[in-house]
Amino acid sequence: MWTMPPADTVLHVLLPVAAAAQAMTAALAAGRRSMDWLGVCLLGCITALGGGSLRDVLLGHYPLVWVENPSYLAITIAASLVTIAIARVVHRLHLAFLVLDAIGLVVFTIAGCDVALELHESLPIIIVAGMITGCAGGVLRDILCNDVPLLFRSELYASVSAVAGAIYVAALWLGLNHDIATALAFAVGLAFRLLAIRFKWDMPKFVFTDERR
Amino acid sequence: MWTMPPADTVLHVLLPVAAAAQAMTAALAAGRRSMDWLGVCLLGCITALGGGSLRDVLLGHYPLVWVENPSYLAITIAASLVTIAIARVVHRLHLAFLVLDAIGLVVFTIAGCDVALELHESLPIIIVAGMITGCAGGVLRDILCNDVPLLFRSELYASVSAVAGAIYVAALWLGLNHDIATALAFAVGLAFRLLAIRFKWDMPKFVFTDERR
Amino acid sequence: MWTMPPADTVLHVLLPVAAAAQAMTAALAAGRRSMDWLGVCLLGCITALGGGSLRDVLLGHYPLVWVENPSYLAITIAASLVTIAIARVVHRLHLAFLVLDAIGLVVFTIAGCDVALELHESLPIIIVAGMITGCAGGVLRDILCNDVPLLFRSELYASVSAVAGAIYVAALWLGLNHDIATALAFAVGLAFRLLAIRFKWDMPKFVFTDERR
Repeated sequence: MWTMPPADTVLHVLLPVAAAAQAMTAALAAGRRSMDWLGVCLLGCITALGGGSLRDVLLGHYPLVWVENPSYLAITIAASLVTIAIARVVHRLHLAFLVLDAIGLVVFTIAGCDVALELHESLPIIIVAGMITGCAGGVLRDILCNDVPLLFRSELYASVSAVAGAIYVAALWLGLNHDIATALAFAVGLAFRLLAIRFKWDMPKFVFTDERR
Repeated sequence: MWTMPPADTVLHVLLPVAAAAQAMTAALAAGRRSMDWLGVCLLGCITALGGGSLRDVLLGHYPLVWVENPSYLAITIAASLVTIAIARVVHRLHLAFLVLDAIGLVVFTIAGCDVALELHESLPIIIVAGMITGCAGGVLRDILCNDVPLLFRSELYASVSAVAGAIYVAALWLGLNHDIATALAFAVGLAFRLLAIRFKWDMPKFVFTDERR
Repeated sequence: MWTMPPADTVLHVLLPVAAAAQAMTAALAAGRRSMDWLGVCLLGCITALGGGSLRDVLLGHYPLVWVENPSYLAITIAASLVTIAIARVVHRLHLAFLVLDAIGLVVFTIAGCDVALELHESLPIIIVAGMITGCAGGVLRDILCNDVPLLFRSELYASVSAVAGAIYVAALWLGLNHDIATALAFAVGLAFRLLAIRFKWDMPKFVFTDERR
């Protein structure tokens, strides 16, 4: 008989995949700015591990994930180097990248909520912890690439993270099994993100022009 | 008979006002860059709460204000959304915004000094803690908007924060009552900031050109 | 008979020199952007002390160096103001600046490794702690000046830091005396950095262009 592995195990397998995916998108951004190889690896590490690090620093949750488990550094460096090597075929893998990145977003969000849950934080802080873990790495990447963070300008990215976190917390609050809550948040978050990309959903923008300044 | 409320109470009432004011200036900056609504709220939160968060992280003072008291998140999000709603009349409220922002600067500075005082930090660190609390949020806002921080380029902003902090600490050191020290630092700081805006006071600039680089 | 002072003592003498050197390079960068005097000092402090602060925050190592020992603030502010005063002769001191900056890089790297060693971190974390201490200040400087960090784009800067850290750790691991390990890492790191500048060594770049985005 086939039994589904517990969602927690799946999450732990997906975490390095998520880190690698975020490192790869960062490496492509680095390549658009002609960074050198070390810069590509640094940007990969900062993007993939920056969200979790910021969450841990803000919540006072030590040691940080990559300090305790430096294999995360190896994974993100390897993913960055692989991206350099396969850059030529990357455009064919465009879709795979988008899906990987979406998986990364949702997995990181759930993992971030888990950390805040462990620390017995309040409900809004749990969701914020998930959003920081999922999104802050990409913000750091954009700052280091000298862009206005994409997160603030377009696409449903932070919103996906907020929704996935809210579903996760709501499911746990309703007394659902941890595995089911994880699977539910993962499925809805991933579907939401992919649909948002596919149908170019976006949020109303606030446009303000002021000559006074 | 009329009694003045203790300055500490006034400060606690003014803190959310200060947070809302900083969130509103951030929301306007976000509107100038056509961010979407969630981006506006995120920038509002980061600007309003970033200075205090950076101070707490640097001093190892946990939990952070908004983690302990998530109503600050609600206040700054609400202030950001209100700014979107009333953007059309904002230019008429220009002066009110400047005054609110100045109040925010001084109130945050005093609150930052208080945290460092509680931690028994040394004199320079108390003033630095006040400056970080008052100014760092605006620096984060400018970085996220991809500007050279205004703080570094013009206006007496960080200076106002430094002066308010120094007066506050000096008054306490001279044995003045805590309420009087707060009121004094608040009054002088606010006056200094408003006069600096009114008369366009600024500091000498350091201009360096170098073809070598 | 002449005895060499212990390398540890030399390191402690060199630390303030390193801080001053990094503040001076930051002040020059501030001058290129016409910042005001306070902005120059702030950028000097953040650049010189930011690397160590980031390391300490990421490793949970409190109190931070400048919080415990505020004379570092005085040194970096003084170095920034001196740079404003002597800016006209700076181009004649170009070489001295490069050497000072290289000394700063290597000294900060070794000091960062020492902190991680004290905290009994694992080998990769020790080297990363050295790199953060040596390099992150310059990254903060470039972010605040609204540049893509130089570190990511060119020159062997982070690599020098990584090599110096690796030599230091390897020498200690081989059982060499602490003084000798320090001297060795310092000499090789400094030589590597100066040779890299002299012969314009650089690393291959990753150039990626993609019309899809």
